[in-house]
Amino acid sequence: MHLYDVHDKTVIVVDVLRATSCMVTALANGATSIIPMANLEDCKKMKASGYITSGERNGEMAEGFDKGNSPFEYLSNDIVGKKIAFTTTNGTQSIEKAKDAKELAVGSFLNLSAIASHLQSRADDILIVCAGWKGHVNLEDTLFAGALAEKLKPVTIQEDDAALMAIELYQQAKNNLVKFLNQSSHVKRLNKLNIHKDMEFCLTADKYSVVPVLVNDELKLL
Amino acid sequence: MHLYDVHDKTVIVVDVLRATSCMVTALANGATSIIPMANLEDCKKMKASGYITSGERNGEMAEGFDKGNSPFEYLSNDIVGKKIAFTTTNGTQSIEKAKDAKELAVGSFLNLSAIASHLQSRADDILIVCAGWKGHVNLEDTLFAGALAEKLKPVTIQEDDAALMAIELYQQAKNNLVKFLNQSSHVKRLNKLNIHKDMEFCLTADKYSVVPVLVNDELKLL
Repeated sequence: MHLYDVHDKTVIVVDVLRATSCMVTALANGATSIIPMANLEDCKKMKASGYITSGERNGEMAEGFDKGNSPFEYLSNDIVGKKIAFTTTNGTQSIEKAKDAKELAVGSFLNLSAIASHLQSRADDILIVCAGWKGHVNLEDTLFAGALAEKLKPVTIQEDDAALMAIELYQQAKNNLVKFLNQSSHVKRLNKLNIHKDMEFCLTADKYSVVPVLVNDELKLL
Repeated sequence: MHLYDVHDKTVIVVDVLRATSCMVTALANGATSIIPMANLEDCKKMKASGYITSGERNGEMAEGFDKGNSPFEYLSNDIVGKKIAFTTTNGTQSIEKAKDAKELAVGSFLNLSAIASHLQSRADDILIVCAGWKGHVNLEDTLFAGALAEKLKPVTIQEDDAALMAIELYQQAKNNLVKFLNQSSHVKRLNKLNIHKDMEFCLTADKYSVVPVLVNDELKLL
């Protein structure tokens, strides 16, 4: 991220497994807004202000929070009309780092086409920020970047080879994303946590047509 | 690089286009040693100590140096028995950053199998450092990483998905590396400089069977 200036760009932050997939799911299912927070304790305190608190660290629900990081937790009626304060290992940290963007939106396979259409309606340069895992690159977020970059062709102008490589990888993976991702380090980590069904959900393309954008530090639907 | 501790690892530094390809070529053709230097002015001063000076910035030969960054400059007899002081935009910077490795060796397609055999003879963890372009990832160094990681299978243990993605990309590219690489940002940059023949040379696998390693800040053949 330190190589790119975000001020003049539309930034799409993605953490496929599972932060941004959860955020998209929650907003598509009636949550009014989400505050992404980098700090665990700050996030937990939001309960006192009427927020539902969602906390994940190292793939598991953090202690003292209302909800964790499974998209299935954001399909229930208890989130309708509610504000959510959300902190995760990677996804919310990436949002924090990119928050000075001209516009910051949150992407996932669940709202892939909606994000692509939204980007095509804007004239800005685009930066796709892959949350990865503790600073390391990961396969699933790169595949999302490839899927999105492919949808934006031929208008994509590439500052380096990152988008090109993501597109090549996505083309190899797209006929069976689940199988392809089973090789990845994070999926192996998640499979140990028994959340294979979360992964299948998060890899479903275009389940929702929402575009969550950051306005005054809150994610809301456009 | 900041994510990895190099102290206990064998590190392979690669800058396919063209620093490490030149270094491998020079040592294979009779140069006695190469001092990789990050700083341009320091490097230029080495001429007074009897070194051949090689300098490249932004893809072109730097002013006041004996040689630039084309491998063809390192095929001539004037380097035989000589020491070379070498500075480039990316490759020598990466060597500088990785010099605290347990062992640092320099790789390129030109000595791919020799490097792989050498690594297989050692028990250390391996880190392949792709020089890239001014901090950005690039296609050609990633493809080398994929080629090398593939040769090391099944012993490769992957700390994250970087090696996995490099292997996938290499598998897609290997039947026609030149064509695949013509998409890349750096190759487009180099083509403008009219050095397509350098690229074809640098993508030739196993032209040399040398393993240059860093000993007391100098690269020498094992």
